[in-house]
Amino acid sequence: MILEALVTTIGLDGRLNIAPMGPEVEPGEIDRFVLKPFKTATTYRNLIEGKEGVLHVTDDVLLIARAAIGRVENAPTRPADVVRGEILLSAARYYEFQVTSVDDSGDRARISVEVVAEGRQGDLFGLNRGKYAVVEAAILATRLDFLPRDEVFAEFAKLERLVEKTGGRDERSAFALLKEYVNLSVPLERPSE
Amino acid sequence: MILEALVTTIGLDGRLNIAPMGPEVEPGEIDRFVLKPFKTATTYRNLIEGKEGVLHVTDDVLLIARAAIGRVENAPTRPADVVRGEILLSAARYYEFQVTSVDDSGDRARISVEVVAEGRQGDLFGLNRGKYAVVEAAILATRLDFLPRDEVFAEFAKLERLVEKTGGRDERSAFALLKEYVNLSVPLERPSE
Repeated sequence: MILEALVTTIGLDGRLNIAPMGPEVEPGEIDRFVLKPFKTATTYRNLIEGKEGVLHVTDDVLLIARAAIGRVENAPTRPADVVRGEILLSAARYYEFQVTSVDDSGDRARISVEVVAEGRQGDLFGLNRGKYAVVEAAILATRLDFLPRDEVFAEFAKLERLVEKTGGRDERSAFALLKEYVNLSVPLERPSE
Repeated sequence: MILEALVTTIGLDGRLNIAPMGPEVEPGEIDRFVLKPFKTATTYRNLIEGKEGVLHVTDDVLLIARAAIGRVENAPTRPADVVRGEILLSAARYYEFQVTSVDDSGDRARISVEVVAEGRQGDLFGLNRGKYAVVEAAILATRLDFLPRDEVFAEFAKLERLVEKTGGRDERSAFALLKEYVNLSVPLERPSE
């Protein structure tokens, strides 16, 4: 199953990177998994260079939204227990990992990792359609180059209703942030006269 | 925030009822909440008569799908700790509750309850788009009387792709069950010649 998660890595320059990733994991124990970053991504570079990071199981969709559009200044973290890395404090569970092998043949790398430490910091909220709507909106926001704009706007309108109806304050903030990002990313087109 | 949850209640005849419900709860401690069952629902009758039940935080979407269409024979449970009720074993957390007041004025009742016991049995998986797709499909399946059929089928086709791409075995089974239910619920219409 694909887990919509956040991965932290540290660059050679010491900079923390926080990125949404969707590794395939099985329900139950997580002891190894495969990350599939694009080879242009900071997560890819950091994992090739540093060989370790932290996977987070989280439903902090405000942080997921911010990570999706690259605005994650000041996310609260603490140093990881075993690897050189940082643990996001708002995550329910975390898995510190080390890279075991890298397959570079495709557009996306396949980076196999094994878990070397793990912990739990809290409970997930439970199923909430507003959180899901933010995840969908965040994914759309990262695909603006590939998707027809009308489709993105129509989908955002549907998702916004779900957030309003079922989400909380964080879900509404996250959605507003993504909506602003999408609106600003689209060059204004004047109707031809 | 609306939590997509399962509620168990026991009838005067001793029969266990398992129903999907969406109470409004805040993140963090759950100590009281409001249930809004239709007055025709078994959950409503059981709560008026028996005054207690159990709310479950769960991501067992196969059970949610089965509960949505009334096919929950043999769901594993154990007796509740404090109330007359049953706890679903697959739930991550549960909240045993007692009714404090009932507002009967609308189509849906507003039943205020307070939590008298709670426990945790396991972890939720984390954000998974397949699980949400099943939740959306289950909600659609309970609204067949109100929604245009074309819309339901179009939405199911989109959701199915999400389940195939991101879900696990349970999500696929749940979706197949809902799809079969929706297909069978729609009377065949012959095109006019």
